[in-house]
Amino acid sequence: MTNFSPHYQSLLTRFETYLERAFPHLAPEVAILEESVRYSLLAGGKRLRPILLLCVVEAGQGEIDNALPFAAAVEFIHCYSLIHDDLPCMDDDDLRRGKPTNHIKFGEDIALLAGDALLSEAFHLISAPERLKDYPAERLLAAIHCLAKKAGNFGMVAGQVADIGAAQSRGSKELLEFIHHHKTGQLIVASLEMGAILAGLNDHARDAICHFGEALGRCFQIQDDILDETGDPTKLGKPVGSDQKNQKLTYPSLFGLEESARLAEEAYQEALTYLAKTGLPQEPLQALADFVLKRRH
Amino acid sequence: MTNFSPHYQSLLTRFETYLERAFPHLAPEVAILEESVRYSLLAGGKRLRPILLLCVVEAGQGEIDNALPFAAAVEFIHCYSLIHDDLPCMDDDDLRRGKPTNHIKFGEDIALLAGDALLSEAFHLISAPERLKDYPAERLLAAIHCLAKKAGNFGMVAGQVADIGAAQSRGSKELLEFIHHHKTGQLIVASLEMGAILAGLNDHARDAICHFGEALGRCFQIQDDILDETGDPTKLGKPVGSDQKNQKLTYPSLFGLEESARLAEEAYQEALTYLAKTGLPQEPLQALADFVLKRRH
Repeated sequence: MTNFSPHYQSLLTRFETYLERAFPHLAPEVAILEESVRYSLLAGGKRLRPILLLCVVEAGQGEIDNALPFAAAVEFIHCYSLIHDDLPCMDDDDLRRGKPTNHIKFGEDIALLAGDALLSEAFHLISAPERLKDYPAERLLAAIHCLAKKAGNFGMVAGQVADIGAAQSRGSKELLEFIHHHKTGQLIVASLEMGAILAGLNDHARDAICHFGEALGRCFQIQDDILDETGDPTKLGKPVGSDQKNQKLTYPSLFGLEESARLAEEAYQEALTYLAKTGLPQEPLQALADFVLKRRH
Repeated sequence: MTNFSPHYQSLLTRFETYLERAFPHLAPEVAILEESVRYSLLAGGKRLRPILLLCVVEAGQGEIDNALPFAAAVEFIHCYSLIHDDLPCMDDDDLRRGKPTNHIKFGEDIALLAGDALLSEAFHLISAPERLKDYPAERLLAAIHCLAKKAGNFGMVAGQVADIGAAQSRGSKELLEFIHHHKTGQLIVASLEMGAILAGLNDHARDAICHFGEALGRCFQIQDDILDETGDPTKLGKPVGSDQKNQKLTYPSLFGLEESARLAEEAYQEALTYLAKTGLPQEPLQALADFVLKRRH
């Protein structure tokens, strides 16, 4: 059990309650799709991305309740990426959060389609006409555009493709940074930027929030790489050593564990520098950065 | 070579020219992703869905040029569904439009991600800030919502899941109709409905257009099932008999070929009845319905 701060725990509880009903009930003919999506979506986890989004909204004095669908959409996309990543043609992982992965439980075909369903549903949820009660249409459009850009060809999917290309190659610091910036960084940036858009922050604050997100994403991914080598599999809910098995290009494989830890700390400090420039209340977002640096799973 | 009408050919040429540049150029680190997407996206095809969208825009006196990104987005989604459908864990097809399928050419991992990239890019393209020059934000939001709904859990993905569940089962007319209504019908409806939204048609015309699309989609899918049994593989660009091989529930498997042909004709007539109710100029959309009924590949 993670030791979340009371503030994190309070946002997490609100988010989990919303998430339970965010994915729609489907026709009985496709009960298996709903079951498969809920199996992965409601399997717990840190919910870091939605919490980041909600924290920015709160810091920018926006309404948490109105932002919940956007937080859920980011989690839908994160969840779809994990389901597709675990497939045999990708990382071929059998265990996720201590349970059989989606395709082990439901078959590869249903797992593939559960991922596709989550990705489509993310955009379905945040473009619903009732959002117009809460936000101007232009702001909704900007949030949709931000998420689509950073989940796809200019973000997460690009990072996954580069990751595949880099496996079994010698790799370089530049390529490693490209991979992490895109694969992990951009969805973290999208979460924060969507929060800034929804809260109506000015361009200066929005830019600073994005830079904060890039540094935070780097810190997160370096820790992820380190934990894949040194973490406790019972706490992680998955076997360690998966990156080595798949000959992935990682920070420890390129720099060793000690230098990787130093780079994580450096990214953390950079994140705090940008956070100071946002003009937002520092504490909740700084607490999240601390959490990212110090997490053990 | 299909015998398109001059009107179809003219819209097709405009669309193909736009499509060539609709998918963005990507970073050199992910050149393989761009190549893989373009391989499938620019492999030709009837482009029925984008042409339907453009035809409604034209009939509703909207601007074709402004609607091209939305037509491309529908084709992105159609293309992603074909790439994922061909994967070994789905239909396991090696040939599409006379060429090796995407995963045969680029590997399963890249094919999976090319599909994910296309789906994300569809929403990225149509939510771009420059669309606000052409359409009110509310209209853009409605178009995005329509596409997300009908591509995902309330349309295509649901149909694919039901299709998997139905294979190797005895099946019923109701289940067959559920599958076709969702798997093929809803993306055709989405194309037409997005055209109606972009052209600013009233609710009555929009409803009639959706009913036209449902009947047209049924006609299209029955013909598709028939062609999978009786078509010319060199014209189809893929082997026939794939449905039988995968023990798919189809119109011919349930009703036989003769009754299936009668049901296609019935759906065509129903489509024309609804088309008359739209209040739009009939000819171009009627010509498309004729094309759907009479196509041989």
